[in-house]
Amino acid sequence: MTSLLLTNIGSLVTNDPARGDLLGEIRDAALVMEGSRVAWVGPRTEAPAADGAVDLGGRAVIPGFVDSHAHLVFAGDRAEEFAARMTGTPYSAGGIRTTVAATRQATDEVLTANVGRLVTEMRRQGTTTVEIKSGYGLTVADEARALRIAGQFTDETTYLGAHVVPPEYADDPAADYVSLVTGPMLDAVAEHARWVDVFVERGAFDEDQARAILTAGQAKGLVARVHANQLGEGPGVQLACEVGAAAADHCTYLTDADVDALASTGVVAGLLPAVEFSTRSPYPDARRLVDAGVTVALATDCNPGSGYSSSMPLCIALAVREMHLTPAEALWSATAGGAASLRRTDVGHLTPGARADLAVLDAPSYLHLAYRPGVPLTTQTFLAGRPV
Amino acid sequence: MTSLLLTNIGSLVTNDPARGDLLGEIRDAALVMEGSRVAWVGPRTEAPAADGAVDLGGRAVIPGFVDSHAHLVFAGDRAEEFAARMTGTPYSAGGIRTTVAATRQATDEVLTANVGRLVTEMRRQGTTTVEIKSGYGLTVADEARALRIAGQFTDETTYLGAHVVPPEYADDPAADYVSLVTGPMLDAVAEHARWVDVFVERGAFDEDQARAILTAGQAKGLVARVHANQLGEGPGVQLACEVGAAAADHCTYLTDADVDALASTGVVAGLLPAVEFSTRSPYPDARRLVDAGVTVALATDCNPGSGYSSSMPLCIALAVREMHLTPAEALWSATAGGAASLRRTDVGHLTPGARADLAVLDAPSYLHLAYRPGVPLTTQTFLAGRPV
Repeated sequence: MTSLLLTNIGSLVTNDPARGDLLGEIRDAALVMEGSRVAWVGPRTEAPAADGAVDLGGRAVIPGFVDSHAHLVFAGDRAEEFAARMTGTPYSAGGIRTTVAATRQATDEVLTANVGRLVTEMRRQGTTTVEIKSGYGLTVADEARALRIAGQFTDETTYLGAHVVPPEYADDPAADYVSLVTGPMLDAVAEHARWVDVFVERGAFDEDQARAILTAGQAKGLVARVHANQLGEGPGVQLACEVGAAAADHCTYLTDADVDALASTGVVAGLLPAVEFSTRSPYPDARRLVDAGVTVALATDCNPGSGYSSSMPLCIALAVREMHLTPAEALWSATAGGAASLRRTDVGHLTPGARADLAVLDAPSYLHLAYRPGVPLTTQTFLAGRPV
Repeated sequence: MTSLLLTNIGSLVTNDPARGDLLGEIRDAALVMEGSRVAWVGPRTEAPAADGAVDLGGRAVIPGFVDSHAHLVFAGDRAEEFAARMTGTPYSAGGIRTTVAATRQATDEVLTANVGRLVTEMRRQGTTTVEIKSGYGLTVADEARALRIAGQFTDETTYLGAHVVPPEYADDPAADYVSLVTGPMLDAVAEHARWVDVFVERGAFDEDQARAILTAGQAKGLVARVHANQLGEGPGVQLACEVGAAAADHCTYLTDADVDALASTGVVAGLLPAVEFSTRSPYPDARRLVDAGVTVALATDCNPGSGYSSSMPLCIALAVREMHLTPAEALWSATAGGAASLRRTDVGHLTPGARADLAVLDAPSYLHLAYRPGVPLTTQTFLAGRPV
């Protein structure tokens, strides 16, 4: 197994809580990878020998971003809808159906190429783990197809048959579509998905429907995560806590009871500020959540409707500017927080034994991710020890 | 002279007013460069032959960004000041002195390398013209040095000896420093600068001082531009209009009379939203300015204190999200508007005879610059007909 020494690291973020500060930062550091794993981290002057060495010239190294919420299997885009929204047309969940129509018509090759393009774009920006949801197929065959394609790019595949009620069920009781989602569709997708998710929102699925969908998925061995409280207060967060979901994502509108429930159950709050940016909505109150002891993950929600950014650095800059996280808290949430949301212990940190997933920044410190918004700072990404 | 055909352009923004819409957009387009100039633009199917051809696969092409306001000649950074500001310490002009101290101590080689790194970073993001100011030297020798270095990278060099009063003059009447700026310092820098600028603000220079500085520069053949109305209402905009400046930049706090003066004189309003982003300040009201008939330029203000972004795409996304420009208005302001601010007719548009400065986007339309915030969409930049 070949070892590689990265040396002359101006600042290394390990996320190792044993080092005292939140980020376990080491100045003037080095890191050794062996095969796909981190073998050693510490001060540069104490680094062991390795088969090869790269001098990073004082650049910063951070754990690769863990993007715990993304919708990448789709065709077409909705740039015109975005432009109309910016001149006053409000966002509604109904626009999802536009993408459903385009996705159903697309070939496997087109969908696979689209996902590959977006994953490549993410990796160039430093993302090394990404969750990918279905949810633009909404037929048995199209949801299974979406998850097969997603599985070519990630282990973190999420069944989101309950994204919206598709148009062909619009005149039926939604219960018929819920029966499909919890029955034949679930049977067809279960082997391709790790997670089950549902959009709990006015215009999407209500509390009872969502509970049925999540518990049906759990009975098939999937783990629950929830789209909760995006467009208004509602039952999503409480339901996530009730069923033992890993994460409640969005969390834009929360009651005190919601915050208490997240803190006491340990359900991770996934915050997706690029959506608030792109829908001109109020940002979730990240400060309130962190101060209450809730574990926060930052993610892109990359999707063609409510927010088509793949940029975790943008999410960090927005979390600092708009949501009052410190730069350290924002980076932690975009790495270790994402790993917690996906219940992964092998990523989101750079300590011996972790997967060697990391990003090299053209900057002396991680602070520049928020200090230099919009600038493509990631110069190199390593995925399981290999440059990508 | 070699010609090159760019074909299969999904959308070409020409900024040619003769084409009807603001951006003079051509779908399914082609463009021919001859040497450093644009020779032909039009529908793909009508393109003439050329010595070489590149198929852009449906990507969009836009004029290179014209960044009309940047402070790139400095040493060090102020990441810690940024982090403190995000937890509540307000921005003040006084922080400029931190960078002055670091810049004076830096060697020519360090300063030149820093400018080169930032200009390269800008070009990778699609910027093909950038104005570069002095203002972190504030001695005769250090201001002249800054402008000599800036001149290695751009023709748009701006003498900003009147950035702040340097610490060694803090106990004297500021008038002594103004005498230096309008006398020996101006004599030393005039051959290296095209523009003269002054920061008109409480804590920097007042109206009479600023008038003296601008008119002294004009007497030496420099053209005026002004930092105006950033931190509060003040005399900057009116002074810019009075002396016939090319631009009044910042324009965050404007009276109705300021807006009227900009509209009636044709002084360009330079808006710098990355500063408001990075100082958590209110954004200027771009909509009000455009609706009043004012010419608006978007620029980065890239500097280590109030906003260290080099990203014109971020400025466009912020202009749309926060300042209510349409995506088309924002792109126009970042290209043709910047050219107007710098009184350049050869850049900011892609019509026959223009300099062949352009950016190729990994997107089917310029709309994606605002629709996909934070994503590094520029895949190729051409500067005077050459890929960079």
